[in-house]
Amino acid sequence: MERENRANNGEDERDVESEGLLDGKEIERYWSGISEKNMTFREPLLVKRVNTTSQIAIVGSNVCPIESLDYEIVENELFKQDWRSRKKIQIFQYILLKWAFALIIGLGTGLVGFFNNIAVENIAGYKLLLATDLMSKDRYFAAFAAFAGCNVVLAIAAGALCAFIAPAAAGSGIPEVKAYLNGIDAYSILAPSTLFVKIFGSILGVSAGFVVGKEGPMVHTGACIASILGQGGSRRYHLTWKWLRYFKNDRDRRDLITCGAAAGVAAAFRAPVGGVLFALEEAASWWRSALLWRTFFTTAVVAIVLRAFIEYCSTGNCGLFGQGGLIMYDVSSAQASYSGADILAVILLGVIGGILGSLYNFLIDKVLRIYSIINERGAYFKILLVITISLLTSCCAFGLPWLAQCQACPTDSSVSCPTVGESGNYESFQCSSGYYNDLASLFLNTNDDAIRNLFSTSTKKEFNISSLLIFFVAIYFLGIITYGIAIPSGLFIPVILAGACYGRLVGRLFESVSELDTGLYALLGAASFLGGTMRMTVSLCVILLELTNDLLLLPLVMLVLLVSKTVADSFNKGVYDQIVKLKGLPYMEAHAEPYMRQLVARDVVTGPIVMFSGIEKVGTILHALRTTGHNGFPVIDEPPFSESAELCGIVLRSHLLVLLKGKNFSRERVISGEEILQKYAAFDFAKPGSGKGIKLEDLDIDDEEMDLYIDLHPVTNASPYTVVETMSLAKAAILFRQLGLRHMCVVPKSQGRPPIVGILTRHDFMPEHILGLYPHIKPHKRF
Amino acid sequence: MERENRANNGEDERDVESEGLLDGKEIERYWSGISEKNMTFREPLLVKRVNTTSQIAIVGSNVCPIESLDYEIVENELFKQDWRSRKKIQIFQYILLKWAFALIIGLGTGLVGFFNNIAVENIAGYKLLLATDLMSKDRYFAAFAAFAGCNVVLAIAAGALCAFIAPAAAGSGIPEVKAYLNGIDAYSILAPSTLFVKIFGSILGVSAGFVVGKEGPMVHTGACIASILGQGGSRRYHLTWKWLRYFKNDRDRRDLITCGAAAGVAAAFRAPVGGVLFALEEAASWWRSALLWRTFFTTAVVAIVLRAFIEYCSTGNCGLFGQGGLIMYDVSSAQASYSGADILAVILLGVIGGILGSLYNFLIDKVLRIYSIINERGAYFKILLVITISLLTSCCAFGLPWLAQCQACPTDSSVSCPTVGESGNYESFQCSSGYYNDLASLFLNTNDDAIRNLFSTSTKKEFNISSLLIFFVAIYFLGIITYGIAIPSGLFIPVILAGACYGRLVGRLFESVSELDTGLYALLGAASFLGGTMRMTVSLCVILLELTNDLLLLPLVMLVLLVSKTVADSFNKGVYDQIVKLKGLPYMEAHAEPYMRQLVARDVVTGPIVMFSGIEKVGTILHALRTTGHNGFPVIDEPPFSESAELCGIVLRSHLLVLLKGKNFSRERVISGEEILQKYAAFDFAKPGSGKGIKLEDLDIDDEEMDLYIDLHPVTNASPYTVVETMSLAKAAILFRQLGLRHMCVVPKSQGRPPIVGILTRHDFMPEHILGLYPHIKPHKRF
Repeated sequence: MERENRANNGEDERDVESEGLLDGKEIERYWSGISEKNMTFREPLLVKRVNTTSQIAIVGSNVCPIESLDYEIVENELFKQDWRSRKKIQIFQYILLKWAFALIIGLGTGLVGFFNNIAVENIAGYKLLLATDLMSKDRYFAAFAAFAGCNVVLAIAAGALCAFIAPAAAGSGIPEVKAYLNGIDAYSILAPSTLFVKIFGSILGVSAGFVVGKEGPMVHTGACIASILGQGGSRRYHLTWKWLRYFKNDRDRRDLITCGAAAGVAAAFRAPVGGVLFALEEAASWWRSALLWRTFFTTAVVAIVLRAFIEYCSTGNCGLFGQGGLIMYDVSSAQASYSGADILAVILLGVIGGILGSLYNFLIDKVLRIYSIINERGAYFKILLVITISLLTSCCAFGLPWLAQCQACPTDSSVSCPTVGESGNYESFQCSSGYYNDLASLFLNTNDDAIRNLFSTSTKKEFNISSLLIFFVAIYFLGIITYGIAIPSGLFIPVILAGACYGRLVGRLFESVSELDTGLYALLGAASFLGGTMRMTVSLCVILLELTNDLLLLPLVMLVLLVSKTVADSFNKGVYDQIVKLKGLPYMEAHAEPYMRQLVARDVVTGPIVMFSGIEKVGTILHALRTTGHNGFPVIDEPPFSESAELCGIVLRSHLLVLLKGKNFSRERVISGEEILQKYAAFDFAKPGSGKGIKLEDLDIDDEEMDLYIDLHPVTNASPYTVVETMSLAKAAILFRQLGLRHMCVVPKSQGRPPIVGILTRHDFMPEHILGLYPHIKPHKRF
Repeated sequence: MERENRANNGEDERDVESEGLLDGKEIERYWSGISEKNMTFREPLLVKRVNTTSQIAIVGSNVCPIESLDYEIVENELFKQDWRSRKKIQIFQYILLKWAFALIIGLGTGLVGFFNNIAVENIAGYKLLLATDLMSKDRYFAAFAAFAGCNVVLAIAAGALCAFIAPAAAGSGIPEVKAYLNGIDAYSILAPSTLFVKIFGSILGVSAGFVVGKEGPMVHTGACIASILGQGGSRRYHLTWKWLRYFKNDRDRRDLITCGAAAGVAAAFRAPVGGVLFALEEAASWWRSALLWRTFFTTAVVAIVLRAFIEYCSTGNCGLFGQGGLIMYDVSSAQASYSGADILAVILLGVIGGILGSLYNFLIDKVLRIYSIINERGAYFKILLVITISLLTSCCAFGLPWLAQCQACPTDSSVSCPTVGESGNYESFQCSSGYYNDLASLFLNTNDDAIRNLFSTSTKKEFNISSLLIFFVAIYFLGIITYGIAIPSGLFIPVILAGACYGRLVGRLFESVSELDTGLYALLGAASFLGGTMRMTVSLCVILLELTNDLLLLPLVMLVLLVSKTVADSFNKGVYDQIVKLKGLPYMEAHAEPYMRQLVARDVVTGPIVMFSGIEKVGTILHALRTTGHNGFPVIDEPPFSESAELCGIVLRSHLLVLLKGKNFSRERVISGEEILQKYAAFDFAKPGSGKGIKLEDLDIDDEEMDLYIDLHPVTNASPYTVVETMSLAKAAILFRQLGLRHMCVVPKSQGRPPIVGILTRHDFMPEHILGLYPHIKPHKRF
C-alpha cells in the first residue's frame, strides 16, 4: 500500500519505537517534564484499538491506520506564503475554484443521486414485476425462486464489490464522514475506489431488496467526490489538474467535504435545506458562516439538477422511474387539525418511539460486534453473511404475506386495485381479482414505495392492524441485522420504514380516540424513530418537512422529535456516535469531560519528547524521522542564537521531508534565512493528497551529508498554540477542540527549565488514554 | 444611574486614568513590555467613538457605556465550585431551570407575539375602517384628517415612550442582540424598561401606519425576556427569585438570549424552524449543539402557543384578527412549474434586487447619520422627527392613490369587490361601486395585508404597472427614512413589502416571456430584497418557506437569494453589521483581518500593566480598583512563595470587591488557602445582574485595614488562556474570538523577564486600535 508509511505517522507521538530514543544517544537533546510514573511503557492507543473494535472489526477492511488532520492553519498556503510574491491572479483562481468546486460537487452528487434513483427503480421494479407476474399465474415457487434468485445475485455483486475492492465502502458512511470532519482521516475512507463501490454497491444493495437506504451512502458519495476534488484529483487514476493544488491543506478540504455531505443528503431526500442543516447539525464539528453560504449553494445546485431531471423523466423517458415529483412522500393533502387528545396520543407515540429507537441503537451495537467476528475472517465470509441475510430477507418478504388475509379492494380508490404492471398500493399476491394482500403491498415493493404506502392519507383501513404488526416486527429486526454486512447500507430508510409502520399501527390503535389521519400518524411515527436513533432535531424536522411538504404538521413533528430524543438520550448515544466509538475512531467531543477538570495539561503529557535545534544536523533529523512516528517536532533556539533556550516553534514531518529532499545543507551552524525557500516551488510545502507526499525512502542522503547542518527556521511554524503546564486539562481540551489543532505545545510555568514540557495531541485527550493513566478517576456522567 | 460606576469598567484596560499610575508610585509593581513609542497617550477607543457615531448618535440614548462579556468560563458557578460541597439537588434544579426557562421564554414570546398581532390588527383595522367609511361618504378631507390624526397620535405615543422611557428600544434591536451575543453588553439594551417600550412602542408604531415591521422588535423582546430571567429577575421592579442565581454567569445568559432571539423570529413570522436558523446564522456568534436543541424546544413552544391562539381566534373572538391561520402568506395554491426563460428572468430579478438591496443599506446608513444629529438634540426633537415622518407617511398613503385610475372589479373574484367593512384586496377609495383603486388597496391597508395582496396568486391584472411603480418608489424611500426615528422599527417588513412590489412589477413587465405567476414573482422579489439587505441565506430561505408554505418554489428562492446576496456583497456589508458598526459597538469578527498577520501579540499590547502579588496589601488593591477601570488583574507569585516570579493567574474586579467586602484580612503575608472561601456563600462570586454587584463605594475599609494582607489565590483564575508575545496577532485573535474570552494574557518568550507582558482585551483587536498604532498598515480587502 502506498500509504503504508504515512500510515505509521498516524500514531502521533505514541509510537512504540519512540522509546528506543532513550537508549540510542544519537539524538542529543531530549527532555521529559513528566514524572517517572507516567513514563512507563504503554501500548499506543490506536494499535490497541485496531485489534479490538476498529473499522476492520466491523466490516473487515485491511489494517486501519488513522491520520489526524490539522485544521489549525488559518490561511491557505497561497495566503500564508507572504515571503513569495503572491500573485493576484492566483487568489482570483482560488476563489473561483472554491465556487467551481461547490458547483461540481452539487452537479456530481445530484447526478449520482438521480442515477441511483433511476437504476434502483428500474432494477428493483423489473425484478418485482417479474415476481408478481409469475404470482398472478399462480406459479408461486417459480415466483419465489425468481425473486430470491435476483436478490441473491444482486446481493453477491454488492457484497463482492465491498469485500474485494473497497471494504471501507460498507456501512452507512456517515460515521466516517463525521469522523473526518472531526479531524480523523481513516485509511481510504474517501478514496476513489470507495466512491466507485459506494455508488454501485448502494444501487445493487437497495435493488437486492435489503432493508437498507441510499441516504448514508449518498452522503459518503458526496464527501468522496469532494475529497477527490480537494486532493487534486487522483494520480492513480490519472485524474489530476494543476489548479487543484490550491486546496492542498486540511482546512480547505474539510470545507469541501462538508459541502459534499450536505449535497449527499440534498440528493438523497431531495431536501436542499435539510442537507445544509444535516451537515451543520450532525456531520460537521466546525462551522463558520462562509461555509453555510457555500453549502447552501451546493445544495441549491443539487436541487436544480434533480428538478431538471425529474421534469425530464416525468414524460416517461426513464423507464419505471418518473412518478413522485420533487416531493418524495407528499402528504400535504391531509387535514392537519388536531385536538388535545391527539396531542396526548402523539406524546405517547414519541415516548414509545424514543424507547424503540434507543433499543434499535443498542441492538445494532450488539449485532455489529457479532458480525465483526465473522467479517474479520475474510472476504468470503463477508459474502456468505451477505447471502444469508439476503435469503432471510427474501423469505420474510415472500413468506410473511401468506399470513395476511385477502382484502376487498376499496370501491372509491383512484388507483387501480389490485395494482397491475407497476408498483402501487394494492398488490394482489395470492388473492383473486378484486382483492389485495395488504402485507404483500408493503413487503413486495421497494422501500420507497412501502414508505409512500404507509404515509398515504385518507386510507385508514388499507392496512390491517395484524399486517402492520407483522411488518413492523419484521422490518425492525431485518433493519438491525442488515446493517453491518458488507454492502453500503444507509440507516435512514430502515428507520423511517419501521417508524412509519409503528406510527400507522399506533394510529390504528388510537382511531377511536384520535381524529388524526393514520397517514399522519405514520409520519409522526417515522419522526419519533428518527429522533430516537439519530438524535438530530432541526435537520430532521426540515428533512421531514421537505420529504412530505406538510408545513402545518410542523408543531407536532417538533413535539414528537423533542419527546423521542429526550427519552432516548436517557438510555444511550445516537447511532452514528455509537458507530464512531465502535470503530475506535478518536472522536473529540465539543465539551470537556468533567474529570478533566481535576487534571492539568502536564498530567497527560507522556513519552520522551523529541526536539530539534533551530539549526540541526541532517543526521539527527533523519534519525528522528526514522525512529519515531511523530508528526510534529518542537524546535528550540539555544545560545548563541538566542539569550536562553526558548521555544522557536513546531516543525512538521512533511515539511522536514521536503526540506531534506531539497538538500540545501551547510557546513556551519549558520542561519540561512528565508531565502532558502526561494529554491522551492510555491506549493512544495503544501499538504499532498493521500499517498502523494515525499516518503522517507525517497530521500537519498549519503553519509557525508549526515554531518551537515540545515536551518529549520524557515519551515517552522513560529506561532504554535501553547498552554502552560498547570492549565486545567478541561480548558486545554476546549482550546484544542475549538481551534481544530493537531499539536499543542505544553510550556513550563516556572523559569529555568527547558522551554517545552511536551506536546499534546488528539490521543492525549481521549478518555481511554486519561483513564489509563489515572484509573482512580471515575468518569461520572456529565449533566 | 445605578450602573454608572460599573459602566466605567467597560473601558477595559484602556482607561485614561490608568496613565496616572506612572506617576503615583503607590502601586509598587508595574511593568510594560512594549516599546516606548506605543506608550504615548491615546484616547480610549470607546470614549472616542461615543462622541461620533455611537448609539446615542443614532437614536439618542444617554451616554452609552459598553461592557465586555466573558464567555470563557466553561462551567457554571455551580459546577466550578468543587471546593464547596456541590449538592445533587442543585444540579438537578439547574437542569430543570434551563428547560423551564426555555419554556417560559417560548410562552412569553409567543404570548407577546400574539398580543402584538391582535393589538395591531385591531387598532390599525378600526383606524382604516374609519377612514374608508368616511371616504365612502365622499368626505375626503374628513377621512384624511381622521387617518392622519390617528396616525400622528399613535406615532407621538410610540415616540414619547421611546424618547422618555427607554431610548434603547428604538430601532430594530437585532443589531444590539447580535452585539450582545458577540460579547458586548451595551447599557440598558436588555433592561425591563426596554422590554416594556419595545412591546408597546412596536404596537403603536406599526398601528400608526409607519413602514416598519414588528419582527426586529419581537427578536429584541424575546431577548429581553430571556435576559430578565437570566439576570435573576429585576430588583427594581421587585421581580426576583432565589433559584435564578444559577444563571449568574455570562455564558448561561448568552444561551438564554440566543433562545430568546430565536423565539422572537418564531413568534413574528410564525416560523419555528426559521427562528432557530435565524439565531444560528445571524444572531449568534458562538453556537453549540446543545443550544440548537434548546432553541428548537423554545421555538416549538412558540409555535404551539401561536397555533392554539390562532385556533381560538378563528372563531371570531379576537376582533378584526383571525384570518390567515398559521401560514401568514399562503401561496401554495400557485402552479410552480417553470421554464428556462423563467429562470433567466429570475436571475435578472435577483441581480437588480441585490443592487437595490445594497442601495437600501447605503441609504439607511446615510439617513441614520443625518438623523443622529437631530436625535442628539433631545427628546422633543426626536418626537418632532417622528411627527414629521408620520405626516409624510400619511400624505403618501392618502395622496398617492389619487394618481391611480379606478379599475373595474374582476367578475370571477371570490372575495367581495370593492371590499367593505374589512381589509382586503379591493379598496374602493374614491371609486364608484363596482370599481376599485389598486393603489389604495396597497396603501390603505396594514403592511401585512399589503404584502398578502402582492403575494396573491392568479390575480395577474389586479395591480397596474404604474400603480406598482408608484407604490414601490414610495415604500422603498419611506422604509429608508422611517428607520432611525425614535420608535421600535423592524426592517423585515419594509424590505419584504418593497421587494414584493418590485417582484410583482418585474413579473408584470416580463409577462410576455415568462409563465410564472405574478404572485410568485412578488415572493421572489421579496427574497431578492431580503438577500440584498440582510445577507442571510438558509434562515431567510426557511423563513420564506414557512411564511408562504410553497416548498416547490424552493429551488427558485435559493437561486434568487444566492444571486442577490452575491451581487450585494460586492458593494457593502449587511444592514445589521452596518448598524452595529455605526453604533460603535466593538464587534469581533469570526475571522482575523489580513493585516493582523503582519503583527504579533506584543505589538498591540499598550499601557502599563497593573498587577497584584499573590498575597497583596489591601491598600494596594483598593488603590488599583479606584484609579483604574481595569476589569481583570494579573496575579504574580514571587519568592518566597515560588522559586521565581511566575504568573499565578488573573483576578476579576468583581471577585476582588466581594473578597474585600468579606474583610478576611491577615497581618502577615501568609497563604490562607481555600478555606477562606468557606466564609462566603456559594453564589457570592457569581456574576450579578446588571447594576446589582458590589460597588467600590459599598466597601468600608478603614486606614488600619489598608496595611493588612489578603490572599488572592482562592479567587484567582489559575488557568487563564495565554499567548506568547511573538504569537501572530491573527492567531491570537482567532483564539480570543473562538473561545469567547474577555482577557488574554501575553507572556514573554524569553526567560528572565517579568512573567507577563500585558493583557489583551476586545479593544486591542479592533481595527481602529491597531490602525491607530500602525497607521502605515493598509487594511486591504480580504478575499
